[in-house]
Amino acid sequence: MQQPAKFVIVGGGLGGALLAVYLGKAGYAVEVYEMRDDPRMAGPVGGRSINLALSYRGLCALEPVGLAEEVLRQAVPMGGRMIHATDGSTVFQPYGVEESQAINSVSRGGLNTTLIRAAAEYPNVRLFFNTKCVDVHLETATADFVDTRTQGSFSASGTAVLSADGAFSAVRRAMQRQERFNYRQDYLEHGYKELNIPPAAGGGFQLQKHALHIWPRRSFMMIALPNADGSFTCTLFWPFDGENSFAAIRGESDLLAFFHKEFPDAVPLMPTLVEDYFAHPVGSMVTVRCQPWHVGGRVALLGDAAHAVVPFYGQGMNATFEDVLVFDECMTRLAPDWEGVFAAYEAARKPNTDALADLALHNFVEMRDYTGSRWFHAKKKAEKLLAKLLPGWFVPLYVLVTFTRTPYAEAVRRARVQARAVAIGLAAIILLLATGLLVYGGQ
Amino acid sequence: MQQPAKFVIVGGGLGGALLAVYLGKAGYAVEVYEMRDDPRMAGPVGGRSINLALSYRGLCALEPVGLAEEVLRQAVPMGGRMIHATDGSTVFQPYGVEESQAINSVSRGGLNTTLIRAAAEYPNVRLFFNTKCVDVHLETATADFVDTRTQGSFSASGTAVLSADGAFSAVRRAMQRQERFNYRQDYLEHGYKELNIPPAAGGGFQLQKHALHIWPRRSFMMIALPNADGSFTCTLFWPFDGENSFAAIRGESDLLAFFHKEFPDAVPLMPTLVEDYFAHPVGSMVTVRCQPWHVGGRVALLGDAAHAVVPFYGQGMNATFEDVLVFDECMTRLAPDWEGVFAAYEAARKPNTDALADLALHNFVEMRDYTGSRWFHAKKKAEKLLAKLLPGWFVPLYVLVTFTRTPYAEAVRRARVQARAVAIGLAAIILLLATGLLVYGGQ
Repeated sequence: MQQPAKFVIVGGGLGGALLAVYLGKAGYAVEVYEMRDDPRMAGPVGGRSINLALSYRGLCALEPVGLAEEVLRQAVPMGGRMIHATDGSTVFQPYGVEESQAINSVSRGGLNTTLIRAAAEYPNVRLFFNTKCVDVHLETATADFVDTRTQGSFSASGTAVLSADGAFSAVRRAMQRQERFNYRQDYLEHGYKELNIPPAAGGGFQLQKHALHIWPRRSFMMIALPNADGSFTCTLFWPFDGENSFAAIRGESDLLAFFHKEFPDAVPLMPTLVEDYFAHPVGSMVTVRCQPWHVGGRVALLGDAAHAVVPFYGQGMNATFEDVLVFDECMTRLAPDWEGVFAAYEAARKPNTDALADLALHNFVEMRDYTGSRWFHAKKKAEKLLAKLLPGWFVPLYVLVTFTRTPYAEAVRRARVQARAVAIGLAAIILLLATGLLVYGGQ
Repeated sequence: MQQPAKFVIVGGGLGGALLAVYLGKAGYAVEVYEMRDDPRMAGPVGGRSINLALSYRGLCALEPVGLAEEVLRQAVPMGGRMIHATDGSTVFQPYGVEESQAINSVSRGGLNTTLIRAAAEYPNVRLFFNTKCVDVHLETATADFVDTRTQGSFSASGTAVLSADGAFSAVRRAMQRQERFNYRQDYLEHGYKELNIPPAAGGGFQLQKHALHIWPRRSFMMIALPNADGSFTCTLFWPFDGENSFAAIRGESDLLAFFHKEFPDAVPLMPTLVEDYFAHPVGSMVTVRCQPWHVGGRVALLGDAAHAVVPFYGQGMNATFEDVLVFDECMTRLAPDWEGVFAAYEAARKPNTDALADLALHNFVEMRDYTGSRWFHAKKKAEKLLAKLLPGWFVPLYVLVTFTRTPYAEAVRRARVQARAVAIGLAAIILLLATGLLVYGGQ
């Protein structure tokens, strides 16, 4: 008889914890090793952790393990973008073509706690925290760890090591030492800094609650996402270097001059702006592409470890959750042929996460350069009109990505065909009108 | 007074050795650490080492240090491609537009020995062999080494560590640990295997001596370069996996069936085909792109460490030698501002080696798919004609890359403009002819 499969999951963040839930539910023995502290010990999670936008793909992966409802209860739905101009005026642009279509602002800490609790409910799932992966032996499916409190070393092995340890994955680093491993990491010239808008004095929200707020300023932007407690988490995306950049801010007066000029309506809502700015680090953003994602049936990559993307399409977490869902589908079909499972999962996901990487990079330009323009606003209205006139046939790209499970690469192809058809349709209408005018003029 | 600069060069291959010659000539203190044995100890170098095609850029870098003539004496000039069809027929395609334009087959071992000897003549250059770089401390310009014979560890530091340690550079690996280091490695699906055609029984060459021989077979190819001793070094480029691949060859009969079918004219010239094939490993080919190439004025990358390319344009070594030449130009202009030197060198080279990486990848497709076609042969003849009709104005891309120092990126741009102008010219001629015919027909 075959040995029942056992999995070593490296990383107990969002992807690793959800994977543990799925594998736990399927009855496999699972060990999760997470570098950080147990999020359940961190006490009630405040509203200050970095926000994420949970949308349809992520919800589809939470639903089969009974977590969608609980997560949505902690979330703030955002029905559209609220664009803030330099003069303080605002315009609201709905995300969907139907009123009900919204993305959901969730706190990373809260969501992680929910997932870890759900994983811990399976007796066949064991969780280890403060354990840092330092190396992986690809031939034996063994991972080496250091206990970050005792500095003691130990190893764990299983049928396979599943890597959910993020953009700087230690598992992937071991895979990079192999021959013929294709790998690419591209950093943005922009960094980001987290800032904060607290709840109003008497409680409640200082800005429209059900919106993702954007201050688009062409070469840079600030965004703000609502938290359940009435605060907003703001993120400033700005070049690291140059004349107009993080590097150019030498002190408080530089900072305030910049904010008063660019975000005048936000400044009065940010009482801790100066202290937040100088206390928080500037983060970097990276796109990671690699291939292959697995070594036989012994090691596989998942989430950011396989395909870190920049955050501008709001799809990083959603794509990771969809990875887990597709992984589960392949497992149901092909286990215990683990090499077959990993190969099928990679074949299904890799072209789509490649497409997402490009979409996310492109959307940064769109968010900071175009969302503030009349042309963009008119285009969004035209898209909505077309979607109503041609229901089911014309679906805007943003809707395909955010509110359907259309594979990312297919969504890109479909949007291209739609755009071509609309251009031909417009040309035909203009031609018909011109012909009509000529005929009319000739009488 | 300022401390005189001292350089630690990691890698004593072709790039590292030539760099040592230049820095030695400029009077700097130089230490070269090479992982392999001293090539001067290896005795007379035979004709079996992998061949390289030295062309104009490489010669321009050897000239100022008085090495061009000596290196050319050991080389075999190749005036063009000799294309071998499956039926054994051959066609010769000259490389240049003038008879004198040739690329030069040189043995890596012989050239390396020449360069090491030249570097050793400077008393301010010290050479260390059997020393493997294991880590680099970017902040202090210090490299850690292991003596591969004694296993003893030691460190070396200087004004700067210069990395000439190839595609799998240990120095670059240390730079990859930094934030915001862009990095990319892409392997080909094809591997390569070295084979051999010995000299004729009575001495002399079994194939035309002054040609680079190609057996283009669309999805794969074999090439052969002449050695001074009358032998040819052959390289088979073939997919690693699949139906028609290295993986499909299970034994001697598979191998011979494949060679008799695809390279029937070569088989009788290769008496050691079977033993060579099964004795030699299958090599992989990688393109490496990264950025930045330097850390302040303390560490800089050069040659394959900065920009490994696939071998199909015959420019890898030439580009590395041109790196050294440009490095020297920047040094003459800006030293002792080493950060300025490294930044100017990177700015001058990076766009060009990026262009070369694409050219080399594209040329693989051209060599194996098109060199055997009538269309390719006609195109080469048309290019030669245009170059004679429009001297100085029309220069084929291959000639710009191989026989001039036009920066690679500029060569690509210029070729694009030329192609467009030729297309417009052809359209104009056709239009004139058609108009002429109409006028003539109307009479």
